[in-house]
Amino acid sequence: MIYSRVLHFHKHVINCSKVKAAIRCDEHIVISAACRKHSVRFKSSGPAGQSAQERQRQHMARGLPKQKPILGVKQVVVVASGKGGVGKSTTAVNLALGIAANDSSKSVGLLDADIYGPSIPKLMNLRGNPELTDSMGSEALPRFFFFLSTSMSMGFLVEETAPIVWRGLMVMSAIERLLRQVEWGQLDYLVIDMPPGTGDVQLSITQNIPISGAVIVSTPQDIALLDARRGAEMFRKVNVPVLGLVQNMSVFHCPNCNHKTHIFGEDGATELANSLGVEVLGDIPLHINIREMSDKGQPVVVSKPDSPEAKAYLKVAAQVVKRLPAPSA
Amino acid sequence: MIYSRVLHFHKHVINCSKVKAAIRCDEHIVISAACRKHSVRFKSSGPAGQSAQERQRQHMARGLPKQKPILGVKQVVVVASGKGGVGKSTTAVNLALGIAANDSSKSVGLLDADIYGPSIPKLMNLRGNPELTDSMGSEALPRFFFFLSTSMSMGFLVEETAPIVWRGLMVMSAIERLLRQVEWGQLDYLVIDMPPGTGDVQLSITQNIPISGAVIVSTPQDIALLDARRGAEMFRKVNVPVLGLVQNMSVFHCPNCNHKTHIFGEDGATELANSLGVEVLGDIPLHINIREMSDKGQPVVVSKPDSPEAKAYLKVAAQVVKRLPAPSA
Repeated sequence: MIYSRVLHFHKHVINCSKVKAAIRCDEHIVISAACRKHSVRFKSSGPAGQSAQERQRQHMARGLPKQKPILGVKQVVVVASGKGGVGKSTTAVNLALGIAANDSSKSVGLLDADIYGPSIPKLMNLRGNPELTDSMGSEALPRFFFFLSTSMSMGFLVEETAPIVWRGLMVMSAIERLLRQVEWGQLDYLVIDMPPGTGDVQLSITQNIPISGAVIVSTPQDIALLDARRGAEMFRKVNVPVLGLVQNMSVFHCPNCNHKTHIFGEDGATELANSLGVEVLGDIPLHINIREMSDKGQPVVVSKPDSPEAKAYLKVAAQVVKRLPAPSA
Repeated sequence: MIYSRVLHFHKHVINCSKVKAAIRCDEHIVISAACRKHSVRFKSSGPAGQSAQERQRQHMARGLPKQKPILGVKQVVVVASGKGGVGKSTTAVNLALGIAANDSSKSVGLLDADIYGPSIPKLMNLRGNPELTDSMGSEALPRFFFFLSTSMSMGFLVEETAPIVWRGLMVMSAIERLLRQVEWGQLDYLVIDMPPGTGDVQLSITQNIPISGAVIVSTPQDIALLDARRGAEMFRKVNVPVLGLVQNMSVFHCPNCNHKTHIFGEDGATELANSLGVEVLGDIPLHINIREMSDKGQPVVVSKPDSPEAKAYLKVAAQVVKRLPAPSA
């Protein structure tokens, strides 16, 4: 049913004589709602005495698929950025490990939702095929009891070098399976590493499951902040609380003379956080350790827990947990 | 018609009892072909005496939309990376400007195909709405005769901070419009800045227009190289020649003591180029100038043409042009 709406809207966009008119639909996030709203805008002004926002809200609520929690998972935290290459996956890995390290009584899972460029397997040096469970043919997944309870990535299912060249509909189906057909077990927190952008994966996840909060990662560079803002605005529109920003790669200390260089800028994320009315959850320096350990599959939080880099991630983890609403028992 | 195939395939993926079986379809790039191939695999072994590859090729050829050149555009070069944040857009901008700077008789256009995170307007400090032409309601675009003939980006059509939250089908429609309904004029080269990933945009562009060559950008970091390889493999599968690799951010010179640090690794791209059988087209250092000039909308090739950074880009531009096939008159 949702697909017929997509097609309807798609036809609508094509038939629309001005691109700008169609582009206005990006205010509405959900395609079905956008389409209806668009029609409303041109064909009817809606019931009198009802504000445009209220009508829009009602339309959207009608069009949205019902969110269903993942069985056994108490809270879901998404790590997003808008732009790629700002250290989102590294942050997600170290955040998940950091939450577990800060409180060993909690069980934490990690889902790599970057279908096209899964990097969690490499970052954590995990390999091998998830086992299949007997009942439904669904995949159980590698369990790493020492640090994380469970983790899952498209990277476990395809060869390391194989490109995953998929249209949006296939991605949606894969995301649905990763969320629902993986045996996540009992988790206090599931950290989801989102792909860059504001497209199919982001929409599918925010529409499918209730999300407790979003962590936005950005470098202080203008061009990254622009996309980070887009990412944050998207979460607001779908009523996902933005827990705060993580500023990454803000300063580089020369290993020779210890001179500090703000290669990617200095305080950009703080300014963005102010203008969005959220806080900076932490500041991760650009340190060669982080990259080297990441390439080796040994996240700093585990491999160098006493380093300033690891401490920065542990602080972010504590800030994130503090800001989450108390889970329903 | 293509949509019904997508839906058919989508249904197929959902009904497929094992994800792995469905995932094998990523070998086939085109959904219709993948679906048919998949059916073939399970239902029939195809005509005797015909190799599996040959059958696959025939199926794919049947399913592919016919490529049609953009009117007036002689050669299209795509700049891609697989992973985001490796400097792809900065490379695309400086490559386009570099080609024009190396040979002022050539007219060069630039298309920002990153629908979700358009960065060309910011990188070139371009603003304002493209004008509408009278005939078809299609958009003409800002012309910058000094450097580039034409440039186009979704960023010209939406507000800077507005998130573009679109499903794949809408993105496909937007790409089609950006390619066909923009008055590109007479161009010797159109440089297309691709978004990260191997999804709808990449498929739409490679299926829609003939592409003379692809330039792959990567940092020397393992995790970026992995995605760069995926990107390169994708182009090979759709018969787009990979012209070579640009290694970005390979070395940082401390502005205080001039110490060199390979923050993101050293020779990764060279190794990847060797294993892919292509060459490294150039090596762009990680220089604060590049980021600062980019954030100011003054690409280094134009703002600091005598700097080593600009020269690195000019060299890449010369290498790219050298490797392109002679355009048909």
